Amino acid sequence: MNGAEILLKTAARAGVTVCFSNPGTTEMPIVAAFDAVTDIRPVLGLFEGCCSGAADGYGRMTGTPAMTLFHLGPGFGNGLANLHNARRAGTPVFNVIGDHASWHRGADAPLTMDIESLAHTVSGWVRTAASPDSLSQDTADALAAAGKGMGATLILPQDVQWSTVAAPQIVPAEADPEAPDADAVQKAALLLKKKGNKSAIILGGSGLHATGLRQASRIASASGCSLLSETFPARMERGRGLPAVARLPYAPAYAFDRLAAFDTIILAGTREPVAFFGYRNGRSRLTTEAQRVIRIAKRPDNAGRALQLLAEALEAPPFRYQPAENAGTGPKSAPAFPQGKLNAKKVSIVLASMQPENAIIVDESITSAAGYYKYTAASPPFSLLTLTGGAIGMGLPCSIGAALACPDRPVIVFQADGSAMYTLQALWTQARESLNVTTLICANQAYNILKTEFKRAENRMAGSHSARLMELGRPNLDWVSMSCGMGVPARAVDTVEELVTALERAFTEPGPNLIQVNLITPAIK
Amino acid sequence: MNGAEILLKTAARAGVTVCFSNPGTTEMPIVAAFDAVTDIRPVLGLFEGCCSGAADGYGRMTGTPAMTLFHLGPGFGNGLANLHNARRAGTPVFNVIGDHASWHRGADAPLTMDIESLAHTVSGWVRTAASPDSLSQDTADALAAAGKGMGATLILPQDVQWSTVAAPQIVPAEADPEAPDADAVQKAALLLKKKGNKSAIILGGSGLHATGLRQASRIASASGCSLLSETFPARMERGRGLPAVARLPYAPAYAFDRLAAFDTIILAGTREPVAFFGYRNGRSRLTTEAQRVIRIAKRPDNAGRALQLLAEALEAPPFRYQPAENAGTGPKSAPAFPQGKLNAKKVSIVLASMQPENAIIVDESITSAAGYYKYTAASPPFSLLTLTGGAIGMGLPCSIGAALACPDRPVIVFQADGSAMYTLQALWTQARESLNVTTLICANQAYNILKTEFKRAENRMAGSHSARLMELGRPNLDWVSMSCGMGVPARAVDTVEELVTALERAFTEPGPNLIQVNLITPAIK
Repeated sequence: MNGAEILLKTAARAGVTVCFSNPGTTEMPIVAAFDAVTDIRPVLGLFEGCCSGAADGYGRMTGTPAMTLFHLGPGFGNGLANLHNARRAGTPVFNVIGDHASWHRGADAPLTMDIESLAHTVSGWVRTAASPDSLSQDTADALAAAGKGMGATLILPQDVQWSTVAAPQIVPAEADPEAPDADAVQKAALLLKKKGNKSAIILGGSGLHATGLRQASRIASASGCSLLSETFPARMERGRGLPAVARLPYAPAYAFDRLAAFDTIILAGTREPVAFFGYRNGRSRLTTEAQRVIRIAKRPDNAGRALQLLAEALEAPPFRYQPAENAGTGPKSAPAFPQGKLNAKKVSIVLASMQPENAIIVDESITSAAGYYKYTAASPPFSLLTLTGGAIGMGLPCSIGAALACPDRPVIVFQADGSAMYTLQALWTQARESLNVTTLICANQAYNILKTEFKRAENRMAGSHSARLMELGRPNLDWVSMSCGMGVPARAVDTVEELVTALERAFTEPGPNLIQVNLITPAIK
Repeated sequence: MNGAEILLKTAARAGVTVCFSNPGTTEMPIVAAFDAVTDIRPVLGLFEGCCSGAADGYGRMTGTPAMTLFHLGPGFGNGLANLHNARRAGTPVFNVIGDHASWHRGADAPLTMDIESLAHTVSGWVRTAASPDSLSQDTADALAAAGKGMGATLILPQDVQWSTVAAPQIVPAEADPEAPDADAVQKAALLLKKKGNKSAIILGGSGLHATGLRQASRIASASGCSLLSETFPARMERGRGLPAVARLPYAPAYAFDRLAAFDTIILAGTREPVAFFGYRNGRSRLTTEAQRVIRIAKRPDNAGRALQLLAEALEAPPFRYQPAENAGTGPKSAPAFPQGKLNAKKVSIVLASMQPENAIIVDESITSAAGYYKYTAASPPFSLLTLTGGAIGMGLPCSIGAALACPDRPVIVFQADGSAMYTLQALWTQARESLNVTTLICANQAYNILKTEFKRAENRMAGSHSARLMELGRPNLDWVSMSCGMGVPARAVDTVEELVTALERAFTEPGPNLIQVNLITPAIK
C-alpha cells in the first residue's frame, strides 16, 4: 500500500467521507488513490477558496473533520481566506497539501514555497510527513487535532505519497474531548445567584446549537440573566421552539453599551468580546476592568455541556419554549408583508417568511441583511451560518459543504454581490454535485459597507477617485449570465412579487438555483 | 498631512501612477487619500489575485515598482498565488496592506492574522510601519527594495494611516543598481574562448529583452556558443529582427539531455536550472557535477548589462539579424495555414500568424500551447509573458497590468480554461478600464495537464473517482456567458475560419474581447 492510500484509509477509518479537492501534479498519487479507497468521495472545486469554504460549511454542520486537498503553497494560499474563517468558527478542518518530493525541496523549483509558515497562519496543528511508515499516525494525529476545533494541516511530500509499505497498520484517530472548566462553572453559578448582580451569558459554539440554547434558557429562567449570541456565530439553531437570543451588535459602541448593563459576563464557547475594527477614538475591548468575565467553555464544542453543568448547578427548571418578546427578536416585531420594488429590508422580510422548515441559511448578506435576523425568531426551525472571520467570499463555498453534509435539508445562501465575486466558482461545484442550494444575490452593485465606513471615517462623500474603489457598477455585474455560464439556472427579480415567485420555483426545483435580487439602496447620507 | 497621504505622495514621487487595489475598512484613509493625491490612479480588482497578477504584468512591462493595496491578512492571502509568480519573475512589486490600528492588534479581533509571516512567504522585504513620521522613509525603502526585483510589503496599521504630521518630508526612493559580476564575466569569456569547450548561455530577466538578446547573439557569433531561454521567462522579446532562442524544455529528462551537450553553462539573469517537479526515479538538478556553471548576473534586471560586458570582453562583432533556422525556432518550421475544427496546434498556428505587431502575449495556455512558441520566431515583434511560478490563474490578471503599462499596445491572453477559472474576475476590470485585451480561452473542458501527469505517474487511465478531479465538464463552462456577465463581449468558435473572423473583429474593436476557442483534444493514450 502506498502513502496516498494509507492517508485515505486512515481518514476513512476516522469517518471522513468527502474530500474537497483541487489537486495538481504533486498530489497525483492521492488523486489515483481515490480510485482505490472509494469510501471518500472527492469533490472538485475550481478554485481552492471554494474547497476551504466548503470544508468550513461541512465541518460546521457535522462537527467532524472536513478534509481538503490542496496543491503546494500557492494552492493553499488560495484557500487561506476561508481557512481563516474556519479557524475563527472553530471548525474541524483537516487539510492535506502535496509538496515536492523530499529530495527535490532543496532545489527551490518554481512552485516551491515555505508551506509550513503559510500553514501556521491558519492552522493550530502543522506537520510535514517524513515517511509512509509513520503516515497513518500522522493522519490520525491531524484528525485528532482537527477534532478539537482547529485547522490541522498535513504536508505530504510526493515521495511519501508514492512510496509503499508492505502491511501498514491503519491507526484510529483518538477523540480528545475536553471537560468544561468545573471551577469556572461553580464561580459562574455563584455570581448568577448573587442578589443584585446583573449577568449575561454570551453564547458561541455548541452553546448556540439546540441543546445548548435550551440549557442557556433554563439558566436564564433560574437566574434572570440575559442571553446573547456572539456577533458572528459559526452555527446557530434558530426559529420556533427554540429560545431566541439577540446577537451582540457589530458596531463597537453599541456592543459596549449593550454589555455595560452587566456586572458579570459569562462566556460559553466564545472569546472575550472585542471590537471588529479599531476606529479612531474608539475602543478595542468591549468590557471594562470593573466587569467580571468568566469563561466556562473554551472549546466551542464544549459550550453545550458547560451550560448543562451550569443549569444543573443552579437547579434550573426544565426548558419550556416561550416565544421571545424581548430584544427585538420576537414575533411582535414581525412586520407586514411588503410589496413593490425590492430593498434590503424587503428581501429580508420575504426570506424570513418563506424559508422552508429545516433550512440551512448561509448568511453573507453584509449590509443587505437589514432586519433579517430579527424577523426569523419565529421562522420554522433553521440553522444559521455566518461570516465568522470577516474574510469575504465565504457564502457560496460554505453552501457546498453544508449541502453535502445535510443532503436532505434545503440550503439558502443569502449573499452580498461584492462578497460573492471572490469565490463565484463555487456555483460550478453546486451544479456538478446537483446540490439543493438556492442562492440569493443581493445586487446593490457596490461595496456598500465600504461606503458606510468611508462616510463614518471621512465625514464626506467619496470623491471621484475613491468612489471607483467602492462602486461595482460600470459595468454592472450580471449574475444571471455568470451563473448560467457555470451551469446554475438563474433569474433576476426587481419586485417582491417576482422574488416570491422565484423563491417558490427555486424551493421546488431540484438542484441549485440563483436569484439575482436587484436592490434599491438608499444613498449614504 | 496624514500617513495615507504621505504614503501616496512618496509613491507618486518615485513614479508610481497606478495602484491595483482591493481595500476594506482598515484601508479607508488610503482610499480617501486617492482623492487628494490624484497622481496615482486606483484600479479596482474584485478579487485580490486579480490585483497581484495585474501588478506582476505591470512591473514586467515597465520594470518599475507596481503598487498594490490589500485588506489585512486574508486579502493578502487571496493575492498570494500571483505574488508568488511575481517573485519568481523577479517583478518589482510594492504591496501595501492595511492592518488594524496598532492599539487594536493585540485584541485578536476576527480579522487578525499573522500578516508578517504571511508576507515573508512571497516578499523579500517586509516592514510594519510604526509611525507617520517615519512612513515616507518606510515607503521609499520598500520601493527601493522592490526596485531590486523582489516583492516588498509594507504593513500599515490604520492609526499610522490616519495620524497626521505637520510638515512631512517626502523622501525619494533610492535606486540601487547592482553591477554585474565582473569576475564571473571574465571567467565566462575565458571559457567561451577555450577551444573545444562547448558552452551555452541560459538567458533570463533583461537578457531576454531586445538589447539583451542582441548582446547574447553577438556573443554567440563570436564564440559559437548556444543560446537558450529559461523555460518560463517573465518577459521575452521575440519575432522578426530579434535573435530567436529555444526555451529549455519543461520535462526534466528532455531539459537534462539538452544541457548534457555542454561543458559550460553561463547563467544570465536566471537561476541554476532545476526540474519543475521531482518525479519518481527522476532528477532534481538539471546539470551535473562535471559541468561548469557560471552566473554572470544574479538580478534579472542586470542580465542585459552583463551580456554587454561579456560581448565586449570577447570583442564580439556588432549584432546582425539572421532569421534563426536552428532549434525548431525558425521560419523553416512555419507550417501550412490550417482549416476546419480547432485543436491546440491549429489555434497556435492561427494566433502566431495573426497576432498584430507590437502585441503583448500573456501565455497561460498550458497544454494548448502546442507549437505556439516555435511558430512565432518570425512573427512581428512582440513581448511574451509566461507563467513563471507555476501558480495558475496568472493570465487574465496579468493582462490588466500589461495593458495599463502599455496602453498603445494590443494585449492578447492565450489562456487555458482551467487556469482561467481561478481569477476570472479579472474580466470585469478589463471591462471597467476599457483595456485593449483579447482573451482566447482554450476550452478543452479539462485539467488536461493533470490527465497527462496522471497517465505518466500511474500508467493507467483515470478511474471514475480520480477522473472527476481532472474533467471540467458536467457542466461545461460557458465562457461566453461568464464573460458577458462581467461586461466583456464574447463569442465562441469551433473552426479555424470562425477563429480568424473573431480575431479580426477583436483586433479592430476597441476595449476587451473574449473568444472561447472550443478545442478537440486527442485522448491521452
